[in-house]
Amino acid sequence: MTEPSCRNGAESLVGSLSAAGVEVCFANPGTSEMQFIDALARTPAMRCVLGLFEGVVSGAADGYARMAGKPAITLLHLAPGLANAGANLHNAKKARAPILNIVGNHALRHLRYDAPLTADVAATASVFSDWVRTAQNSQTMARDAIEGLAVARGHPGRIATLIVPADIGWEKGSGGVAPLSPQEARPLDEMTVRRAVAALGPGAVIICSGTVLEDPHSTGLLAGIAEKTGAVLLAPPSNRRIERGAGRASIPRIPFGVDEAIELLSPFRRAILIETQPPVSFFAYRNRPSLLLPENCEVIQLAEFDQDGRLAVHELADAISAEAPRGKTKHPPITTPTAGPLTDDNLSAAIAAALPEGAIIIDEGMTRARLVEAYTVNGPPHSWLSITGGSIGIGPPLAAGAAIACPDRPTVVLQADGSAMYTFQALWTHAREQLNITTIVFANRGYEMLRQELANVGTNPGPAAFGLMDLTSPELDFVALAKGMGVPAVRTECALDLFRILSAAVREPGPFLIEAML
Amino acid sequence: MTEPSCRNGAESLVGSLSAAGVEVCFANPGTSEMQFIDALARTPAMRCVLGLFEGVVSGAADGYARMAGKPAITLLHLAPGLANAGANLHNAKKARAPILNIVGNHALRHLRYDAPLTADVAATASVFSDWVRTAQNSQTMARDAIEGLAVARGHPGRIATLIVPADIGWEKGSGGVAPLSPQEARPLDEMTVRRAVAALGPGAVIICSGTVLEDPHSTGLLAGIAEKTGAVLLAPPSNRRIERGAGRASIPRIPFGVDEAIELLSPFRRAILIETQPPVSFFAYRNRPSLLLPENCEVIQLAEFDQDGRLAVHELADAISAEAPRGKTKHPPITTPTAGPLTDDNLSAAIAAALPEGAIIIDEGMTRARLVEAYTVNGPPHSWLSITGGSIGIGPPLAAGAAIACPDRPTVVLQADGSAMYTFQALWTHAREQLNITTIVFANRGYEMLRQELANVGTNPGPAAFGLMDLTSPELDFVALAKGMGVPAVRTECALDLFRILSAAVREPGPFLIEAML
Repeated sequence: MTEPSCRNGAESLVGSLSAAGVEVCFANPGTSEMQFIDALARTPAMRCVLGLFEGVVSGAADGYARMAGKPAITLLHLAPGLANAGANLHNAKKARAPILNIVGNHALRHLRYDAPLTADVAATASVFSDWVRTAQNSQTMARDAIEGLAVARGHPGRIATLIVPADIGWEKGSGGVAPLSPQEARPLDEMTVRRAVAALGPGAVIICSGTVLEDPHSTGLLAGIAEKTGAVLLAPPSNRRIERGAGRASIPRIPFGVDEAIELLSPFRRAILIETQPPVSFFAYRNRPSLLLPENCEVIQLAEFDQDGRLAVHELADAISAEAPRGKTKHPPITTPTAGPLTDDNLSAAIAAALPEGAIIIDEGMTRARLVEAYTVNGPPHSWLSITGGSIGIGPPLAAGAAIACPDRPTVVLQADGSAMYTFQALWTHAREQLNITTIVFANRGYEMLRQELANVGTNPGPAAFGLMDLTSPELDFVALAKGMGVPAVRTECALDLFRILSAAVREPGPFLIEAML
Repeated sequence: MTEPSCRNGAESLVGSLSAAGVEVCFANPGTSEMQFIDALARTPAMRCVLGLFEGVVSGAADGYARMAGKPAITLLHLAPGLANAGANLHNAKKARAPILNIVGNHALRHLRYDAPLTADVAATASVFSDWVRTAQNSQTMARDAIEGLAVARGHPGRIATLIVPADIGWEKGSGGVAPLSPQEARPLDEMTVRRAVAALGPGAVIICSGTVLEDPHSTGLLAGIAEKTGAVLLAPPSNRRIERGAGRASIPRIPFGVDEAIELLSPFRRAILIETQPPVSFFAYRNRPSLLLPENCEVIQLAEFDQDGRLAVHELADAISAEAPRGKTKHPPITTPTAGPLTDDNLSAAIAAALPEGAIIIDEGMTRARLVEAYTVNGPPHSWLSITGGSIGIGPPLAAGAAIACPDRPTVVLQADGSAMYTFQALWTHAREQLNITTIVFANRGYEMLRQELANVGTNPGPAAFGLMDLTSPELDFVALAKGMGVPAVRTECALDLFRILSAAVREPGPFLIEAML
């Protein structure tokens, strides 16, 4: 291997990652990452995308990974920068989305003096990573990065974090390090497969997530299995990516609400789990169980997270000679929206009618996106990405990464207003990279989810408490906020307007924002 | 003690903290904190301030603590919410500002099932806290909070974090728990005091921070000591709060730039440190030492962080019969600004001339605030708060807390544009609480600090690298961003305009933003 350009540790690292197929670096760097800025600028095959806040960087890396099926790297600055990235790394970790974080730290010799930015980077990383390593010298750091990349790229995807003391990046590098094969999925257990086959039939539920929902062939086979055996198909409330729409099997999600979920699951006596865990309520509620399946339900973990769910589905289908149903495209046509206020139905119909084939839908709509999902079930085929770790502030960042992974597909963000404000800086990245992202803000002017949850927990504390969930004083103006970051925007209160504006926006390049006044 | 209102654990906790003198709760709660929302709403003496992002909450708690001299509490949601608060908790920890965080977690019974929001809250807390405890039951959690409050209120101030599993807040509480005395400052070591007295004279430098810089009487005595002995007075680059302006001793800060700092400190052979540590460069630079005092300089740690620096100053002054100099107010009058572009001089003169007595200045101006400091040294007395932990994104949140602590004083934020975008959501809190805060955004459209640092580290990678430090594409429009959050704003390119607008804004109630085009 000739290494004409590998001059220092940082260049060895960046060059090795580039040669291993990493194409994008989402960055919010500081002084301790100057060696990487330098090296990245010398690596033309690596696209650098700047985020104005670290939560944008990590959310974008997650969105990129979910759509590209491979990791981007992030470039982050010390413990506070990593902490800022933490909430969306949490979501990515729960999504099993592959990411390799490169986090600068002070030079080793500098750490003992407690300079202002000194804090425990490794401890910060440990909470939101599956693999953490601190590079020890310039000769081995490229190898460290390649090992981290292999961990991230395994099955399932993982969050790998390499901490790099600033000084060693400047020292003489190792030259390029060849890629390592990622860890393959752990083989299925044939005994468990046989148990699952035997469990099929009425009273059985198959709950699947992960790679299965990303693969229309696998979900088609599942539909065939369900048709043949009477087993019911479900997905967890949140999933990394679902490929859905006309011609694809529809696998309903278990509802967020604990009572609805318990009721839905109550008939089942046998549950077959594929790349998911036993369903658990989002929070613990008084007088409600944490686990949502009935106590007397037999649970068969057909594929754990580290096993290949698609293979499991194929083995199930083979065992009973099930095939994907034919003629699945006979769905009723999508309703054309009419003029009128943005009720849940009008809003959802308008969005569904405007979505073109291949749209990527980012769902941080919280209370208001549920009906959109129902309206789009028969729409043109599309990808649906949701908030996997419950940490709000993922929508616009996730969209940025997804759009960078799939520049030829329009991305549409269903965005609750309260959640939008956590990482709204992503709009600037939408504009800077001229991404075809249309963000629809569901402006209900409050933390509607919390209002509902306050009722769920069974208390009624009066107006003072609701004041903490109210966003009307002052009113947020999302059109102005978007304009402030270079994204054109309009406000609408009419479903037909929304349909027309969205239809145009998804067909035009560049970002757009629609403030939908509910 | 009668406890008519203490019904559950959350109410016992909130009621006890209120009785102990805690008056403000900065909050960004979620479902697992509903019991606290409920309890806070029943505690009228506790002011609840909502932040739209957790970094706003922690930065505001820091600003409140620095000005009120006592802790507020924060209310945060699980590990991701705490991580979002982390960067500004880091700054507060380095400021030794007292804060008590109340962080909700899942019910204990729920943790084992890996619900979406499950992550290690205690590990997240440990990085940015001095004290961490997880409440175990409803009968002891108020006591836990009172112990945490006492830790926070000690000398120096500390970050205390109490993690509260959601379920126990709803169970029967303990009733009120009486306040505990905070840990007092550790006594001075008399031998060290004598060493410091002996070290005074030409060739000596006194470097002080913490409570000393907050106390004009102490800084006056230091000026007397310097006058009498020839010792030189300096402060670290970043400090929690400096009380400065006409009639107060001026204690220059050690510059941020490593070469300037080393040169400034090079003449000294004896250094007396008071509530600060040996000065260290912000980052490690190649061919530069981490420690900035000359190698042959004797270091006398007169007061550690946990000792009372004011007392140390008094003992020094007593030992040599030094008094604060008289006639200190004979300073040249402040220059009146004239019309013209916003050069560093014009900008600084305009700001200095507009500041009324009692202003609170929040310094996140980065590269552009240094000259404002020089121009205000003889201005009307004011408080100067700076970014203590180097983690950018503190300005608008810190201002929110300071303004809530001191409603009768105008707060002025010197805000770099790049840093502004990390926690800009604080503007909404400025508007919601109608705080008299004027934010001046220094719009140089780039990470100027990084551009300088890239030069400091001695590389020249060309335009691709500088693209990662550039904010011109698209241009941020801070007037639109402010409007989006309910804060009136204008843009100006003229120093005289800036003077006039700022003069009016500090005298009017409510928030304002000025985008100063540099």
